[in-house]
Amino acid sequence: MDDLFLKACRREPVEHTPVWLMRQAGRYLPEYRELRAQHDFLSMTREPDLAAEVTHQPIRRFGMDAAILFADILTPVAGCGIDVKFNPGPVIDDPIRKEEDLAPIRAFDAAKHVPETLQTIRLLTARLRVPVIGFGGAPFTLACYLVDGAGSKDFARTRIMFHQEPELAKKVLDAIGDMVADYAAAQVAAGASAVQIFDTWAGLLSPRDFAEMEAPVLRRIFDRIRDLGVPSIYYLNGCAALLGEIGKLGADVAGVDWRVPLDVARAALPDTMAVQGNLDPIVLLGSPDTIRERVREVLAAAGDQPGHIFNLGHGIHKDTPPENVQVLVDTVREESHR
Amino acid sequence: MDDLFLKACRREPVEHTPVWLMRQAGRYLPEYRELRAQHDFLSMTREPDLAAEVTHQPIRRFGMDAAILFADILTPVAGCGIDVKFNPGPVIDDPIRKEEDLAPIRAFDAAKHVPETLQTIRLLTARLRVPVIGFGGAPFTLACYLVDGAGSKDFARTRIMFHQEPELAKKVLDAIGDMVADYAAAQVAAGASAVQIFDTWAGLLSPRDFAEMEAPVLRRIFDRIRDLGVPSIYYLNGCAALLGEIGKLGADVAGVDWRVPLDVARAALPDTMAVQGNLDPIVLLGSPDTIRERVREVLAAAGDQPGHIFNLGHGIHKDTPPENVQVLVDTVREESHR
Repeated sequence: MDDLFLKACRREPVEHTPVWLMRQAGRYLPEYRELRAQHDFLSMTREPDLAAEVTHQPIRRFGMDAAILFADILTPVAGCGIDVKFNPGPVIDDPIRKEEDLAPIRAFDAAKHVPETLQTIRLLTARLRVPVIGFGGAPFTLACYLVDGAGSKDFARTRIMFHQEPELAKKVLDAIGDMVADYAAAQVAAGASAVQIFDTWAGLLSPRDFAEMEAPVLRRIFDRIRDLGVPSIYYLNGCAALLGEIGKLGADVAGVDWRVPLDVARAALPDTMAVQGNLDPIVLLGSPDTIRERVREVLAAAGDQPGHIFNLGHGIHKDTPPENVQVLVDTVREESHR
Repeated sequence: MDDLFLKACRREPVEHTPVWLMRQAGRYLPEYRELRAQHDFLSMTREPDLAAEVTHQPIRRFGMDAAILFADILTPVAGCGIDVKFNPGPVIDDPIRKEEDLAPIRAFDAAKHVPETLQTIRLLTARLRVPVIGFGGAPFTLACYLVDGAGSKDFARTRIMFHQEPELAKKVLDAIGDMVADYAAAQVAAGASAVQIFDTWAGLLSPRDFAEMEAPVLRRIFDRIRDLGVPSIYYLNGCAALLGEIGKLGADVAGVDWRVPLDVARAALPDTMAVQGNLDPIVLLGSPDTIRERVREVLAAAGDQPGHIFNLGHGIHKDTPPENVQVLVDTVREESHR
């Protein structure tokens, strides 16, 4: 296997900076839209051949150094029996209001509830030369959907539960954390070479609420992944105020959003952590010259020390021209050659 | 006039920390909802007697140390002839796509376009013993609504304009900046004792885009307010990654969101700036004991040096129990007495 990505996760020297992009398998690719025209989103995540093909598409076209499993952060939630619709954002008609509502999550069993996802990973590890990254949603981010019941700009209902019913909120985070750790372990057993935990919404938490409520659950997840012998990545959207906390979670790599230059992130994180990121995805809708300049800026901020995986600071935008992604990948290869 | 608030803006010693809350005039108050049941939102901002009454309500009930004008950040935009609906968030059916679309904004004339708002301020200065804070939207935040045409979680269209049509984007920001500066000057002439600029969305910008695109326009606005002889407050939601830039804008006070402890903000800002904030508004939906504890935590982080105005880190949540606001105000008074 081409292990450039895994070496960078472990902060070992590499001949050039590895690159993959969050949401690299998706709507900006014509070959994805062609498949999507024939299948709905949930079917695409649930049919192993389709999900493996979609995961493969950007690798085939651009030659990224890692593949990220095509699935949704709510895949295990839907799998264990909670009714999740995509409309197009996730909608949960019966959100969690009391401890009993956690029963399906507590009964999560990967082999029973997400067999197609595990089969997708097996297909991919047989087909690809690059590592497959498994993933899960972070406890707070999944709680946002499970408690608020739909996307929101502030997920007030979930955050209100933290202050009105802190004991219930802790149980929600614990139950989700156990599910995510089991899900990660099953993905690794199926062949995933690394696991990324996506925390899209924890940037809404004050440092104290993050440290007291979510961090202990995240630490358990990252301890579990460490015991599996694969590297872990913690991506936190809106990480600027929480860099000090991120260093204490036990993840190997910090996924940094586009608001924090990587030299600032490096200075605030422990020397033992690698960094991943962090081009503003919107830059990919600009000119090739701008893309090259901003890619060089990210590489310069990451510096010469080992332990950088090139990525965007957030998922790729659906209107991104695919040829601009090629400009990004080529520039990373050329400019980071050692 | 009771000038505790103004003294704190100027970093002069005060007998206790002044307090007001973003969106203190609004839906969480039964006396507001009573009026709102009889009038639509736009009428309430446009009828001076109503707007003055609504501005007055929280002062009467809780005795805050400053009143914030009841209006919307889009009031001058709607006033100059751009069609803005509230549904309930703002919707602009004809968003800005080219330079000619800026004509109404460039023709902004406060006396002609927002006479009711100026009259509201005159009524308030005659009726209140506390300072009236005028306000405006920041150029990027207003551009988000004017270019995207409605609320959004990422305002991609506006940020794409930054990279696809940077010259047009600069003209949009410049035109808005001139309008906001004129609007602020008219509010001060009508009697406002300070001006707050609300930047709800600039936390979406990378530090480079913020510094290159919005910061020069903000500096012109704050220079203009300085020349008027009143203090200025710059509130940036999601400020953690931009604290270094905020210090260079020429505002007197940094409004800090709930993600950044005030001691961290103080350390990153110049000694010449006061700070405002920054209790997480969601805490106000918790228990009185938690509110007291978290208020003390904010006061402790602000420290003993002068120049702190107590506020929330974001607007008050509509489901806040009014009695909890009283707990907050009383705790600030008691705990900050010197």
